Amino acid sequence: MNTRRRAVREQILRAAADLFREKGYRASTLDGIAARLSMSKATLYTYFRAKEEMLAAISRETIEAFTRELALVLRSSLPPDEKLRRVVRQHARFVIANRSFLTVFFSEEASLPARFARQLAAQKDRYDKGVESVVVEGIRRGVFREMPPRLVVFGLLGMLNWIYKWYNPAGPWGAEEVSAAFLALVEGGLLRAARRGPRLESRLHRLRRELAVVVKALDD
Amino acid sequence: MNTRRRAVREQILRAAADLFREKGYRASTLDGIAARLSMSKATLYTYFRAKEEMLAAISRETIEAFTRELALVLRSSLPPDEKLRRVVRQHARFVIANRSFLTVFFSEEASLPARFARQLAAQKDRYDKGVESVVVEGIRRGVFREMPPRLVVFGLLGMLNWIYKWYNPAGPWGAEEVSAAFLALVEGGLLRAARRGPRLESRLHRLRRELAVVVKALDD
Repeated sequence: MNTRRRAVREQILRAAADLFREKGYRASTLDGIAARLSMSKATLYTYFRAKEEMLAAISRETIEAFTRELALVLRSSLPPDEKLRRVVRQHARFVIANRSFLTVFFSEEASLPARFARQLAAQKDRYDKGVESVVVEGIRRGVFREMPPRLVVFGLLGMLNWIYKWYNPAGPWGAEEVSAAFLALVEGGLLRAARRGPRLESRLHRLRRELAVVVKALDD
Repeated sequence: MNTRRRAVREQILRAAADLFREKGYRASTLDGIAARLSMSKATLYTYFRAKEEMLAAISRETIEAFTRELALVLRSSLPPDEKLRRVVRQHARFVIANRSFLTVFFSEEASLPARFARQLAAQKDRYDKGVESVVVEGIRRGVFREMPPRLVVFGLLGMLNWIYKWYNPAGPWGAEEVSAAFLALVEGGLLRAARRGPRLESRLHRLRRELAVVVKALDD
């Protein structure tokens, strides 16, 4: 596919995703998508012959984009906490930039052909497992506290995926603010460092007692 | 409505929600719901005349149940961290017990009549604001760290709502395990106590230096 065709294809998918999100998938038609693009239906047909194909393309390309970004992080030699930070940031950025795609992706699974839906579920599962490997590595290396890694991943991805439901591009927050807040919320819970409080407290207490003894000895 | 009718109505709504979840709302029919209940369509009609009515009832009753439980917590005199714990636990329990309702509730908003969808959005917003008031109270009273309360709420409710997507009743976790893991993940991040580390560390450092001075003075 040449660059021009690729760009038009991308444009069609964006318009389709916007329409699916606004009107719902079932109520959307090829005519509606062509109209939104000021494109003849004949031209549209040279790209996609049915809205089912668009839905499949949207779903496939959404999960592929997620997977590609994750693979880069997993292959890096960053420490696990930094890996997780990158995953959270890029996931938030991606959800915010592709709200229409994501709305379709998360709501229309039941509309996908069964075989394709199974493939998609397998790809999603691989993504989850990739994020989980970062959490597992973090726990093993003592950077994260002991927690059920799968539930940590479900919690994290829940926070991040849910953005598509409430995010308003006209609102006060950009992707960076959202992921910074989520990281602040979650890191304190995940990073062992944040849990040093009680241990330090008891050492401080011991020191204070020793000092009192020294002070008393000096006074005597 | 007498008790018997109320019970049947509840049963119909559960069957409808199950069918909507499995087949999708559009593909579901009154016939299908009647068949699933082994009920005549004539009897079904004395409860609901259209699947739109069922969808509206499911949505209304879902949000009302959430709101009722939240109101009890908000009215209590519990400290904010304990309030938040209760909200998280009951939200998780409710999502797990009502997966079918929630799937319909979260996926079919576009299928609701516009006026009703607006009412529902307003009710959801009130729920969010209720949870937010707990976070705000916690920050004000110094129990929680300073964070954008609205983003904390979106993060928390995202974790909790997303359960409906991945939860498998045949899987290894019950509602208690899920909310315990989510609370462990989030509390470390939210509770100020978990962040005392650095401050304590600097006090410890200062003490150590003072001790060194004392020890040196004693040695001299």
